[in-house]
Amino acid sequence: MKQVYLDWAATSPPYPAAIKKMHETSLELYGNPSSLHEEGKKAREALENYRERCAALLGCEPKQITFTSGASEANTLVLTSLLQRKRDRHLCISSIEHASVEYQARVLESLRIPVDRVPLSIGKASNEAEVALSSEQLASSINRHTAMVSIMTVNNETGAIMPVPMVRRVIDEAAEHHGKPIHFHSDISQAAGKIPVDLDKLGLNSATLSAHKFSGPRGAGILYSRVPLDTIVGGGGQENSMRPGTENLAAVAGMTVALETAVEKMEHNRQQACEHSEILIDGIRDIGGDIIPADYKTAPFENIYRNEEISFSPFILTAAFPPIPGELLTRVLDREGFSVSTGSACSSRGKRDLRVLTAFGVSAEKAASAIRISIGHSTGKQDIHRFLDVLKEQVANLKAVSS
Amino acid sequence: MKQVYLDWAATSPPYPAAIKKMHETSLELYGNPSSLHEEGKKAREALENYRERCAALLGCEPKQITFTSGASEANTLVLTSLLQRKRDRHLCISSIEHASVEYQARVLESLRIPVDRVPLSIGKASNEAEVALSSEQLASSINRHTAMVSIMTVNNETGAIMPVPMVRRVIDEAAEHHGKPIHFHSDISQAAGKIPVDLDKLGLNSATLSAHKFSGPRGAGILYSRVPLDTIVGGGGQENSMRPGTENLAAVAGMTVALETAVEKMEHNRQQACEHSEILIDGIRDIGGDIIPADYKTAPFENIYRNEEISFSPFILTAAFPPIPGELLTRVLDREGFSVSTGSACSSRGKRDLRVLTAFGVSAEKAASAIRISIGHSTGKQDIHRFLDVLKEQVANLKAVSS
Repeated sequence: MKQVYLDWAATSPPYPAAIKKMHETSLELYGNPSSLHEEGKKAREALENYRERCAALLGCEPKQITFTSGASEANTLVLTSLLQRKRDRHLCISSIEHASVEYQARVLESLRIPVDRVPLSIGKASNEAEVALSSEQLASSINRHTAMVSIMTVNNETGAIMPVPMVRRVIDEAAEHHGKPIHFHSDISQAAGKIPVDLDKLGLNSATLSAHKFSGPRGAGILYSRVPLDTIVGGGGQENSMRPGTENLAAVAGMTVALETAVEKMEHNRQQACEHSEILIDGIRDIGGDIIPADYKTAPFENIYRNEEISFSPFILTAAFPPIPGELLTRVLDREGFSVSTGSACSSRGKRDLRVLTAFGVSAEKAASAIRISIGHSTGKQDIHRFLDVLKEQVANLKAVSS
Repeated sequence: MKQVYLDWAATSPPYPAAIKKMHETSLELYGNPSSLHEEGKKAREALENYRERCAALLGCEPKQITFTSGASEANTLVLTSLLQRKRDRHLCISSIEHASVEYQARVLESLRIPVDRVPLSIGKASNEAEVALSSEQLASSINRHTAMVSIMTVNNETGAIMPVPMVRRVIDEAAEHHGKPIHFHSDISQAAGKIPVDLDKLGLNSATLSAHKFSGPRGAGILYSRVPLDTIVGGGGQENSMRPGTENLAAVAGMTVALETAVEKMEHNRQQACEHSEILIDGIRDIGGDIIPADYKTAPFENIYRNEEISFSPFILTAAFPPIPGELLTRVLDREGFSVSTGSACSSRGKRDLRVLTAFGVSAEKAASAIRISIGHSTGKQDIHRFLDVLKEQVANLKAVSS
């Protein structure tokens, strides 16, 4: 029986049409978009056409889009731009950022850029949500030296959708208080193509995404920035001098096709994911599993631009079955034909990184027991039911063995 | 009639087999190589297989290969690693480096990394070559603070093959003198797949290349380094923590196929290029054009690992027809069906950059008149003859107009 893929947050099976477009473009438009001859001009025209289409899909201006090799590179470009600043080099990030922000921030710290991490507040927010990002705590993490705040839109381990509009408002208040602009950056990799994203409305100064998260090709990503960023990379002046290197037109073509497909089918895919997510949550609770965090509930998506509290993407779900170690359960499920993960693939090699899950208020023990189930547009209801059957059986087996 | 492409140094028409491999891999091995499940393990296995094959083709160890999105990114990783050093942050580069080294060096200068540029010596070297890299000048550019010397292997505008073994020797002498190691980096983008490259023999500490220069896909490159580099990027720990981001397996697969094909046919392609190059040089001189530099002559390739003087790659030729501006001639040739360039595509948009050609000892006036003709494995002899006919005609027309 075919392996059932439930690790879409790590990477997604691509749309064949997107890969076909990449293939055709590689062969037909091989010119360097920076060359001035026939092949170059054709490639340039196509590149700018894709830029316009991506901008329209994301709600921004074409000139605000820089094509990169992916979100990790784009996050690096944004964060290392702080090194260009002579003063006010303080960075503020959340405690649940993706490795490409958290570990980039650690590199910056070693280069004498001070970094503050805003924790989530646990169990002391409104009665609707136990886990919250407190506007007071955020405000107190911003000081008069703060140049940038980086808080992701959708967390890659728990699916938590951060209250971006609240963050923007707190930043604006702090900026007014300190009498200077503060840059708001957000990694939108788990949002783009899955939940509505309108960059202009979201009020970000910069945002980053990877095509392979929404069934586009690997090696293509976008750095959105309202105004050109002073990146620390130098080269041939491509992409508005923000990202040197010959433009990867074929991957950009594939990304555009994927983003168009994803946006077109977003409402359908989202509703389907909500249904699957509910089945998963019920099934997991039935067999004694814990959803992380406990107050997980999917978002009223129409309101994302007014979000004041954390809600959740239906595409990502983390559950724990203590005392079964997450690695063991992942391995057993893999053997039974189901691909889930223990968390971010970006930190799955080597010692397990419990940083994010513990930031959501669970114990290290429970975090070590967690598995991430992430679904996508081609995940079928039958897959979910079969998964739950096998999960029930294997959890029972493993608990019997360990007791 | 089909456009004749003579701008292979900017980018090359890909091998269909390489693009097909990328296509198939995108669809079949979509797993994240860092994931621990079935799809992830298959992707990891393939990735390490390609790493081994690339290493064998380039004469190094698999663990010395870091896959990147291309040479520009790889050069940035190498050069910005200097920011991690607490002291001895001096950088020495040649005056003819690619934009991704020269302009990266300028960014580093703005970040208080001092940079020295070794000029070429013109008309005062041995009787065999007018343009030379003087070992004395190189030695005097290295001081006790020098951490790194970056000198490209094949210049992208003139085809000049730098005397890498001599550079290594001078660096070793300086390192011994100052009692500390000095890193030797070289961009081998115009060498890989075209002239014999054996990284172990070349004696570099690091090297960089882009697949699209040897008919591989865009978006894939290699950073070779003898020992892991302390890059300033942080993220998910991929690629030995030197280059974060989900590994672009499909592009790596395509790159490997292209490199295998290029290496297998290297001797044939090189001989063909030498023949074409001789026809081009004779034809250009017949119609009164100047080859830049005047002492251009292609290399005895068997000796590249003993090169003490500059020789030239037969794949790249720069010629000038003063007073005709290079841009004008490029445009006219394009209209007539021939794609050449005025130099590096990486600096063709915006004001023309004459930095490299003037470093080769020609006047700014002559440099502004230059066009670059670069050929590849599928350039036919008939294309060369037709090109020379049209060039002769158009140069005569333009000279008649301007006189």
